[in-house]
Amino acid sequence: MADIPVKIISGHVTSARGFRAAGIHCGIKPQKRDLALVVADAPAPAAGMFTTNRVKSPAVILCQERIRSGRTQAIVVNSGNANTCTGPQGAADARETARLTAQHLGIAEDLVLVASTGVIGIPLPMDAIRRGIPQAVQALGPSGEEVAEAILTTDSGPKTSAAQVEIEGKVVTVGGMTKGAGMIHPNMATTLCFVTTDAAIEPRWLRVALRRAVDRSYNRISVDGDTSTSDTAVVMASGLAGHRTIAEDGEALRPFQAALDAVMEALAKMVVRDGEGATKLVEIRVRGAASDEDAHRAVSSVATSMLVKTAIYGGDPNWGRILMALGKSGAELVLERLRVAIGDVPVFTEGVGGAADLAKVEAVMRRKEVIIDVDLGLGAGQATMWTCDLSEEYVRINSAYMT
Amino acid sequence: MADIPVKIISGHVTSARGFRAAGIHCGIKPQKRDLALVVADAPAPAAGMFTTNRVKSPAVILCQERIRSGRTQAIVVNSGNANTCTGPQGAADARETARLTAQHLGIAEDLVLVASTGVIGIPLPMDAIRRGIPQAVQALGPSGEEVAEAILTTDSGPKTSAAQVEIEGKVVTVGGMTKGAGMIHPNMATTLCFVTTDAAIEPRWLRVALRRAVDRSYNRISVDGDTSTSDTAVVMASGLAGHRTIAEDGEALRPFQAALDAVMEALAKMVVRDGEGATKLVEIRVRGAASDEDAHRAVSSVATSMLVKTAIYGGDPNWGRILMALGKSGAELVLERLRVAIGDVPVFTEGVGGAADLAKVEAVMRRKEVIIDVDLGLGAGQATMWTCDLSEEYVRINSAYMT
Repeated sequence: MADIPVKIISGHVTSARGFRAAGIHCGIKPQKRDLALVVADAPAPAAGMFTTNRVKSPAVILCQERIRSGRTQAIVVNSGNANTCTGPQGAADARETARLTAQHLGIAEDLVLVASTGVIGIPLPMDAIRRGIPQAVQALGPSGEEVAEAILTTDSGPKTSAAQVEIEGKVVTVGGMTKGAGMIHPNMATTLCFVTTDAAIEPRWLRVALRRAVDRSYNRISVDGDTSTSDTAVVMASGLAGHRTIAEDGEALRPFQAALDAVMEALAKMVVRDGEGATKLVEIRVRGAASDEDAHRAVSSVATSMLVKTAIYGGDPNWGRILMALGKSGAELVLERLRVAIGDVPVFTEGVGGAADLAKVEAVMRRKEVIIDVDLGLGAGQATMWTCDLSEEYVRINSAYMT
Repeated sequence: MADIPVKIISGHVTSARGFRAAGIHCGIKPQKRDLALVVADAPAPAAGMFTTNRVKSPAVILCQERIRSGRTQAIVVNSGNANTCTGPQGAADARETARLTAQHLGIAEDLVLVASTGVIGIPLPMDAIRRGIPQAVQALGPSGEEVAEAILTTDSGPKTSAAQVEIEGKVVTVGGMTKGAGMIHPNMATTLCFVTTDAAIEPRWLRVALRRAVDRSYNRISVDGDTSTSDTAVVMASGLAGHRTIAEDGEALRPFQAALDAVMEALAKMVVRDGEGATKLVEIRVRGAASDEDAHRAVSSVATSMLVKTAIYGGDPNWGRILMALGKSGAELVLERLRVAIGDVPVFTEGVGGAADLAKVEAVMRRKEVIIDVDLGLGAGQATMWTCDLSEEYVRINSAYMT
């Protein structure tokens, strides 16, 4: 896709034509914004991907049912409470949240999607949500930061991204927002991600584009190896850009895909960079694997190893742990063919470690962005993942989440 | 095995008749003991289990070759250096270590096993080992604590256990030592474990007994989900207890198995209790799974979840994370049949969370031993694992291991 000029712009979920949004405080959290609303001017082609965890929020189940129609007009999101493991009451609360939003917007109920993120197992405080929905509808406008703030949990700040491409001479905008910062591991769409675009595209091809973009972004990040029960990625397309509707996997889909990929990769990297307690972004590249599956096994094992992640946090040149993680991954591996480099410093070359360069290894590991490059030397399989380091702060955040 | 009286005694690797040992400082570490030797008075039936990591120490490869004969007379162990990823020199160093030990003991070289634990990728300081071996041979005696100290890395203290049973009216002793404290996850024998016994048993049945004992002990513990490149469990049997040699899976094997199980379960729990940074022992029990494999998936997912482990560390009653971990495990799961309890406090019962009891949940999570009880309500599959909590101290230890 290097030949398609994608322009990265400063933007967010209302940068594309045809969308309004609002982010308000309704009272689920003590002070911060906790209720977000994204609304299209008219029912819009939409696609979604959701958590593979068998324990799902009823909001996820509701979205999975409603997105099948291929059309959506509004998404209402609360943070501070995941409304998960809350029994029949939780399912009723998710439906009521959608129904109230539909009533106040004056649209059909089945055009409303719902997402909830936060603590698991506590009933949703519906009084706050009932108060909040009309306020959010009232506040709808060209909101970017406020709505992006309202979907956060342990994130250090809002995460938005936008890009533009041309299709048939028309400017097409894609903009989105996401949240972190824990329970992040690649299984379908990870965490929450909402993207809007003014591209004109059939729901069928929007689904294809979303699946490809997720595979290239959210399915390549890991913070802690845990998979959220609320993971939701939804894209809505207003069609107002003015080009002919994309109805096949052809020339028009490619620039749209490039813009969607750019926005979602940027958002996914923001999630990792702001992983709970993270101080560094780590890119792990595996090539030369016997197969792509083997490459994924290898890259995933390195990306989730607590020993690798703590070493990177400390800038400790303990490259042996990368070999340990490759060895336990199940991927085919022959030490005599293996090459591992950190940054541009080789640490292991075909059976022998480069112990002499420990100071150089330490220098590259102390950078804010650490690249681990693995060549298994066996075949053409490859995979890349982004993760973060593991610090004491991760433990502090997660040992007192509820208390 | 509840009907077999096993007497737990205060003991170690030289409690059984026919063994001597020594633990000395040879200079691999700055000050602490770093060279251990366990020697049988005569060639003894022996069995071993080793890491499944594809990146293996040459010491492991040497042991795997030599243990096939079913007989061993000595085990030499160094700590402070894993002699792994050290190329052809590492393999030569492992062989030289065994050869020197055999020479100074005056025994055949192929009766000597070698183990190395510590940092990966640094050549073994052979000068220190060459100096140390004759000193260790000189120091051989009824050593218990010293030899157990010499195999440690980040452990807070030595780990030994012993038990006695009667076979045909004769007292049989089993004693052992182990080390932690990171790279611990159930894949065959985890970490280092050396056990001696004066039972008389054919190598074939010693192998069977070791495999069963490892399945019930070391294969049920996890500290950090990482699998060491040096994992080795070896048992040697002097045969001096005086009963007839165990040569079938019958009445005589059962008490020996019970004693071996007791010693290895005690040692495995010591490893978890002393996991890097650990402040608590966590027992996770899954029953009612669709199959034993499903139970293992479920128990393993909970035991390795960083979010579950940090919550337990903080005594944070965030039981939703246990459900998250069960949900992502791949095990068959129906929320309406699932029951989860922490200690004796139900937190989730057939679809509904027990949010009302958060104070009670917090109280049981603040204990030094936390039990998580899961009933999937689907079948007869079950599995148990022991793990520890995840603290800031784990990060501190592992972010500056080499520096």
